[in-house]
Amino acid sequence: MLERISHLGYAVTDIEAAAAFYRTSFGVEPGESEPVEEQGILATMFRVGESSIELVQPTRPDSPVGKFIARRGQGFHHVAFEVRDLEASLAELKARGVDLIDSEPRIGAGGMRMAFVHPHEVFGVLTELVESRGTGTH
Amino acid sequence: MLERISHLGYAVTDIEAAAAFYRTSFGVEPGESEPVEEQGILATMFRVGESSIELVQPTRPDSPVGKFIARRGQGFHHVAFEVRDLEASLAELKARGVDLIDSEPRIGAGGMRMAFVHPHEVFGVLTELVESRGTGTH
Repeated sequence: MLERISHLGYAVTDIEAAAAFYRTSFGVEPGESEPVEEQGILATMFRVGESSIELVQPTRPDSPVGKFIARRGQGFHHVAFEVRDLEASLAELKARGVDLIDSEPRIGAGGMRMAFVHPHEVFGVLTELVESRGTGTH
Repeated sequence: MLERISHLGYAVTDIEAAAAFYRTSFGVEPGESEPVEEQGILATMFRVGESSIELVQPTRPDSPVGKFIARRGQGFHHVAFEVRDLEASLAELKARGVDLIDSEPRIGAGGMRMAFVHPHEVFGVLTELVESRGTGTH
């Protein structure tokens, strides 16, 4: 079911400082950070192999990522795995009794179809599934 | 500098339960778990694309992973990025003033040359660098 690691989400308090650090120290190329209003975040990504690292800064303390940082501090927030057919994957997981945050696909950043699995099912790791856009498009 | 995500380390309290869950729910194939005595852990891995997920269960509460779980609970523990030349990468990071846990390469699980960067430098994400074994061997 899991084709590749699509991305890791890192929660940070200062996205410009984090992007500058990764650019300078590790030679990666984060893009301009962009607001995602409905999630209350600024986000940017950089590529590592077939995966990406997404840096996410909350723009409101009451946003999910804002609350996460207040509770746990900066750090790893979630992993996203690519699957070929998100609806089929969610149906399989539901049939096996796996508790899902999103029982149906929803549209995430960049227009991707995605859904979250409950972290208590996956041993404390907030886990997202994102649908592949087909060969050659990523 | 960063070639790919080599692996993500997940800290779990019951490696057999975690491996069985991932096998059944996500169709992956973790190997037999094996003890790494000097780190006080049992570990197993499964492949996702060009990366792996490493499940790690402490065998002693005073091991680093045992203390991590006592403090933070189960969940994401570290990310490991592959680099081509670990000594050169560490030298570059030191020259830029990046604080390293391991200023020289050491030998990790599976005989890989690896080193950890201090999590406070990388915005709270415990970050490992592992040396590539050359094209075609992974």
